[in-house]
Amino acid sequence: MGIVVQNIERADPAIIERLAACGVATVHEAQGRKGMLASYMRPIYPGARLAASAVTISVPPGDNWMLHVAIEQLKAGDILLLAPTSPCEDGYFGDLLATSAQARGCQGLIIDAGVRDVADLTAMKFPVWSKAISAQGTVKETLGSVNVPVVCAGALVNPGDVIVADDDGVCVVRREEAEDVAKQAEARVAAEDDKRGRLAAGELSLDLYKMRERLAEKGLKYV
Amino acid sequence: MGIVVQNIERADPAIIERLAACGVATVHEAQGRKGMLASYMRPIYPGARLAASAVTISVPPGDNWMLHVAIEQLKAGDILLLAPTSPCEDGYFGDLLATSAQARGCQGLIIDAGVRDVADLTAMKFPVWSKAISAQGTVKETLGSVNVPVVCAGALVNPGDVIVADDDGVCVVRREEAEDVAKQAEARVAAEDDKRGRLAAGELSLDLYKMRERLAEKGLKYV
Amino acid sequence: MGIVVQNIERADPAIIERLAACGVATVHEAQGRKGMLASYMRPIYPGARLAASAVTISVPPGDNWMLHVAIEQLKAGDILLLAPTSPCEDGYFGDLLATSAQARGCQGLIIDAGVRDVADLTAMKFPVWSKAISAQGTVKETLGSVNVPVVCAGALVNPGDVIVADDDGVCVVRREEAEDVAKQAEARVAAEDDKRGRLAAGELSLDLYKMRERLAEKGLKYV
Amino acid sequence: MGIVVQNIERADPAIIERLAACGVATVHEAQGRKGMLASYMRPIYPGARLAASAVTISVPPGDNWMLHVAIEQLKAGDILLLAPTSPCEDGYFGDLLATSAQARGCQGLIIDAGVRDVADLTAMKFPVWSKAISAQGTVKETLGSVNVPVVCAGALVNPGDVIVADDDGVCVVRREEAEDVAKQAEARVAAEDDKRGRLAAGELSLDLYKMRERLAEKGLKYV
Amino acid sequence: MGIVVQNIERADPAIIERLAACGVATVHEAQGRKGMLASYMRPIYPGARLAASAVTISVPPGDNWMLHVAIEQLKAGDILLLAPTSPCEDGYFGDLLATSAQARGCQGLIIDAGVRDVADLTAMKFPVWSKAISAQGTVKETLGSVNVPVVCAGALVNPGDVIVADDDGVCVVRREEAEDVAKQAEARVAAEDDKRGRLAAGELSLDLYKMRERLAEKGLKYV
Amino acid sequence: MGIVVQNIERADPAIIERLAACGVATVHEAQGRKGMLASYMRPIYPGARLAASAVTISVPPGDNWMLHVAIEQLKAGDILLLAPTSPCEDGYFGDLLATSAQARGCQGLIIDAGVRDVADLTAMKFPVWSKAISAQGTVKETLGSVNVPVVCAGALVNPGDVIVADDDGVCVVRREEAEDVAKQAEARVAAEDDKRGRLAAGELSLDLYKMRERLAEKGLKYV
Repeated sequence: MGIVVQNIERADPAIIERLAACGVATVHEAQGRKGMLASYMRPIYPGARLAASAVTISVPPGDNWMLHVAIEQLKAGDILLLAPTSPCEDGYFGDLLATSAQARGCQGLIIDAGVRDVADLTAMKFPVWSKAISAQGTVKETLGSVNVPVVCAGALVNPGDVIVADDDGVCVVRREEAEDVAKQAEARVAAEDDKRGRLAAGELSLDLYKMRERLAEKGLKYV
Repeated sequence: MGIVVQNIERADPAIIERLAACGVATVHEAQGRKGMLASYMRPIYPGARLAASAVTISVPPGDNWMLHVAIEQLKAGDILLLAPTSPCEDGYFGDLLATSAQARGCQGLIIDAGVRDVADLTAMKFPVWSKAISAQGTVKETLGSVNVPVVCAGALVNPGDVIVADDDGVCVVRREEAEDVAKQAEARVAAEDDKRGRLAAGELSLDLYKMRERLAEKGLKYV
Repeated sequence: MGIVVQNIERADPAIIERLAACGVATVHEAQGRKGMLASYMRPIYPGARLAASAVTISVPPGDNWMLHVAIEQLKAGDILLLAPTSPCEDGYFGDLLATSAQARGCQGLIIDAGVRDVADLTAMKFPVWSKAISAQGTVKETLGSVNVPVVCAGALVNPGDVIVADDDGVCVVRREEAEDVAKQAEARVAAEDDKRGRLAAGELSLDLYKMRERLAEKGLKYV
Repeated sequence: MGIVVQNIERADPAIIERLAACGVATVHEAQGRKGMLASYMRPIYPGARLAASAVTISVPPGDNWMLHVAIEQLKAGDILLLAPTSPCEDGYFGDLLATSAQARGCQGLIIDAGVRDVADLTAMKFPVWSKAISAQGTVKETLGSVNVPVVCAGALVNPGDVIVADDDGVCVVRREEAEDVAKQAEARVAAEDDKRGRLAAGELSLDLYKMRERLAEKGLKYV
Repeated sequence: MGIVVQNIERADPAIIERLAACGVATVHEAQGRKGMLASYMRPIYPGARLAASAVTISVPPGDNWMLHVAIEQLKAGDILLLAPTSPCEDGYFGDLLATSAQARGCQGLIIDAGVRDVADLTAMKFPVWSKAISAQGTVKETLGSVNVPVVCAGALVNPGDVIVADDDGVCVVRREEAEDVAKQAEARVAAEDDKRGRLAAGELSLDLYKMRERLAEKGLKYV
Repeated sequence: MGIVVQNIERADPAIIERLAACGVATVHEAQGRKGMLASYMRPIYPGARLAASAVTISVPPGDNWMLHVAIEQLKAGDILLLAPTSPCEDGYFGDLLATSAQARGCQGLIIDAGVRDVADLTAMKFPVWSKAISAQGTVKETLGSVNVPVVCAGALVNPGDVIVADDDGVCVVRREEAEDVAKQAEARVAAEDDKRGRLAAGELSLDLYKMRERLAEKGLKYV
C-alpha cells in the first residue's frame, strides 16, 4: 500500500485500435475464453466501445483519495481501472474527476464499485463500466496504490494491460499477448462474416459446423 | 439428457396474438397471479413486447451445444427458452445464433443465463430476456435436451407453452389454458380502460373499489 | 399496523425546489454523506430528477392494499415511498395506481420492492425508483400503515421528509434540516463550477486541493 | 389457488427407505444428475438424513395459513414441502407447528423460505432444510393450495414425489421413478465401496477410470 | 459524524431479563411482528440467547476506530451494536476488542458487517450475531459516532433500545415499550404451553384455532 | 487451457507450520491487510486450522475432470485449490476424491464452488473451505489446467503459494514472502499476548494505543 509506479509500459496504440474494432466477445474468444470481468460490470449508457491501456488503482473501501493520484499518471488514450481491497459499492467517481481525467486524455473508467453523476458523465460521453451506480460519498484518509497488479471483478489486471469494453462487458488482454490476440480476433471476424451470410440464408449451424455426427456419437436421440 | 422431442403441439397463433396484445401484467393477473419468471429476467433493450410458443432447451452450465440443435426445431413464430441445469451466467447466445434463429422465424430468446453481442441483437431487433449480459464464452462438449419440461427462472415451462414478455418481465401460460387466459385478459383490459378514466378524473380507488368498509372492519384507524 | 396519519408537516416547496436543482450527489455530500438509500434502488427510465415530500407506506410482503389508502393522503407535489415489512420484489404498483396518484398531483414513487407497467409509466412520465421490475401480482388482505416512519432500502424515512432522486439514486433529507442542506448544497454547486473549469484546463486535483503534502506525510512513495 | 388435494399417491415405504440409505449425492447421480434443489437450502442442524413422500404447499409471501391446512393431510412418514409464490424469507414455521406435524408422524420440513424456533426444533429432532432462519412473523389472510405441483428452490416437485435430504442438500425423485433410482443408487454404492478401497491404497483415479488416453486425445499437455 | 453521546437511558434490567427468557420469535410476535433485523444476521455459534441495552456505533466502511471509543461507553450488561454507513463485510472486531468489552461487562456484539477470531470468541463465550465472518482487516482513520440512532440490518435502533438475540436472529424492542412487550410476550408463552400440549396430543390447529369456517368462506376447496 | 505444470516450487515446511500456528487474522494483518479470499468461503466444519502449499486448478463450470489430474501432482502436505473459469456452485468434490487426495498426503481443499459428501468429509477430518455445499453433479468433458495462476474468490493464487485457513476464512501468502510474513505474524502474536492481559484487566484500548489525542484532533465530540 502507498506506492505509485510512474512509468509503465503500454501496448502499441495501433494494436489497441484493432482490438477495439473486434469487440469484447470476439476478443475474449480469440484469446481462448479467458479474461472476462464478472458480468455485474455494466456500462452506465449503451453504445460505448473502446480499448485502452489500464492505469490500475487499488483503494480501501469507501476512500477515493488514490483516484486523484492516479489521474496524474494518465497518458492520452489510457483508461482508469479501480479495484477496492474489499467489496464496496460507494460512489468513488463523479463528474469533477471525469472532467480532470478527460482533460488528460483518459478514455473512460472501469470500476469494481460505484460511480455517480451518471447523467453528467453520459452528457460528457465519458464511458464507465461499474458494479453499481451510487451517490454514496467517500473519504480521503487512507493510502492505496497506483499501477500495481489488481484483481478487478474477478480478473487479474496488470498496469498497461489492454482493456476492451463494450455493451457485452469488459475483457482484459495481457499487454504482451495483445498483438497475437488482435490477429486471432481479426481472423474470427473474417470467418464470422462468411458464416453469418450462410446462416441468414437458412443453413443450419448443425450442418455448417458438421455437428451431426459427433452429436449422434454422444448419444443424442430424436423422438 | 440427450433427447430432442421433434413434434410438439403449439397454441393457436390467433390466441397467441391476443395474449401479446394484453401484455405481461394483465395476462399474469388474468390467470390468477401465477406463471411469472423471476424478476431478474430483464430485456436487453426496452420496448419489445411479444407472445410466442416455447421451444425449450435444457443445457449443462457453460455449454451451448444444444442451442444449435434447438434451432432446427423452430417453427416460424416460436421463441427459444433456455434453462441451465445449475445456475450459470455465461454468454450462451450471440449474433450468429440469432441470425440463424431469425432466419427460421424465431421471435426471440428467454434465457436463464447470459447473452452476448447485445449491440448487434438490438440492431437486429432480436429481443432477449436474460439473467445477465456476458461475453464469457461456452463450450460444445456435453448433451442436453430440447423440448422437455424445464424450470426457467423459477417457473415450470413445458414445450409449446405460450411465453408472454415485455418490459415488465416474462410470464408463461399453459398451452391448454391459453384461450381461457386470453379471454380473461381481454376482459380485464376492457374493465381497466373504464377505471383509468375515472381515476384520471380524480375518483379514488378506495371509492371505485368500495374498499372503505372492509378496511374499517379490519381495524384501520385514521389519526 | 393499521394506522393512517392524516396531517403531516411538509417542507417549504421553495426549499424542495432548491434541493431538486442541486441533485442527489451534491445534496448527499452537503448533509455530511448521509441519507442515501441502497444502490439497488434504480429509476425505471433515465433522466428523471426531482425532490418532493414523502408520504410513507409500510406494507406486508405481497399486499398492496395500503397504496390505495395512501393515495388519498397525497397533496400536490408529494411523492409516495413504500417499504415492505420483510423483503419482497412483487409488483405492487402499476399504471392504474399511477393514473390515480398523478391525478392527485403526485410526483412519483420510491419503492423498496417491485413495480410493473413500466412501459406505460414511462409514457406517462411518472418516475419510479424501485428495487425490481416485476409483474408478479399482489393481494389486498392485510393492513399496513400510512405516514409512519419506515426503513426504506436501508435508510430511515419519516413522513414529510424530503426525497431527492435522480439517475444517481435516492437520498432522504430530514424535513427540519432541509433549508440548511439546501444552502450547503448550493454552496457546493458554486464551488464546483469554479473547480470544473480549472480541472478542464488541465490543473490536477492534487494541486487544486493541495493534497501532495498530506500524501507524503502518510507515506506515499513514487517509484 | 385455494385447492386441497386430499388423496395423493405415495411411493412404497420400502423403496423410500432404500433411497434414504443411499444419501443425496448418490441418489442425484443415480438419476442422471437431476432433481437437486438450489444449494441455498441448508439444514438447521447437521447430521439429519431422510427420505419421505412430499406433501406440497403453495403459499403467498408472508402468509402461513396453508401450513395449518397441510398438516391435516399428512400421513405418517411424510415430509412437508413449502414454496412461496414469490421469493420470501419470513419465518413461516416454528415449534408449535412442528409439534403438531410430529404428532401426525411427519419426518421434517423442506421450505424455500424461513423457519424459526430452530433451537426448539433441534431439541425436538425435527429436521428442516430452509432458505433462511428468521423469526419474522407471518399472517393468516390469504389462501394457497396443498398437494399441487410446485417449484421449490428451482426444482419441480409433485405431491407424492420422494424427497431425499441430508447435509449435502435436498433432491427430489419422481414417485414413478423411485424404484429404478433406488436400484441404480444401490449399484453405485456397491461400486464406490470397491473404488474407495483402491483409492485409499494410493491408486490414482486417472488409472482406476482409465482417463489418461482420453485426456491426451483432448490435448492435455504436461510441462 | 464524530459525536459520542455519553449518558444514554437504558431499560430496567429486570425487564430485559424477562425479554431474554421469552426469546426472539415470541418477543417479535408480542410487539406486533416488528423489529426483526434481516435474516442474514447469524450467530457465530449456536445456543447463545440474551437481551441487553444497545450501545450503538455508526462507522465508515472498513474503519473500526469507533469500536475503541464505544467500549468506554459500555455499562455492565450492555451489548455493542455496529452499523456501517455503507455495506461492508470486513472483519471489524476480534478477540482483543472482545477481551476489552468483556472486561467492561459487555454481553456480546450485533454487527451488520464482518467479525473475526471466531474460534477465540467461541472459546470466550462472547456471542456475536454478524452479517459475515471475515479476517479482512480495517483501518483507524475516519471518525464515526457512538450512541446515535442507526439503521442496522434494515431495522432502526436507538441507543438504549433492548436487543433480544438467539438462534432465530436479532430483534429490537424500543426502550419505552420494553415493559409492555415483556408482558405481552409472557402471556404468549403461557398460552403456547397450553396449545403445545393439545397439538402434541394430535389435535389439529385447524380446530384449535377454529379456522375451518373462515377458510371455507374464503373459498378453500377440498378435492 | 489444457496444461499441467508438474514441478512447482513450494515454501519451506517449517515456515508453513509457523504460519499455521499464527492463524488467518494475524497472518493477514502481518502482510499488510492483503490476501484474503472473499468472506463467502466457509469451512464445512468448525475448528480446522492449517497452512499448506497450493496445487491450483482452473476448471470449466460444472466439470471436475481436472481434479483427477491434479491429485497426481500432490505432494504430502499440499492443499488443493480450485477456481472455475466462471461462477459455479456445483458439487465438484466428494468423498471418493477426498479419499484419493488424503492417500497422497493432501491437507484439504479450497474451492470457489460447491462440495458434497460433507458428512463423510467431516468424519474423515478432511477440511474444505467452499463457496457452497451442493450435491449437484459435474461432468468430465472439458480440459482445464493444473498449477497455473488462478483468481480464487477474488484473490490471485500462484501454484506453490501458501494457503492459511481457519474458522475466519482463507488467506494466501506469496511463497517468496512466506518467511518474512511468518516473522511479522509471530511478532504480532507476542505483542497481542501482552495487550490481551492489560485489556482483560480493564485498561481501555483508547489509552493502551494512545488514541485520545488523535481523535480530538480529528474533531470527535463527547456530548
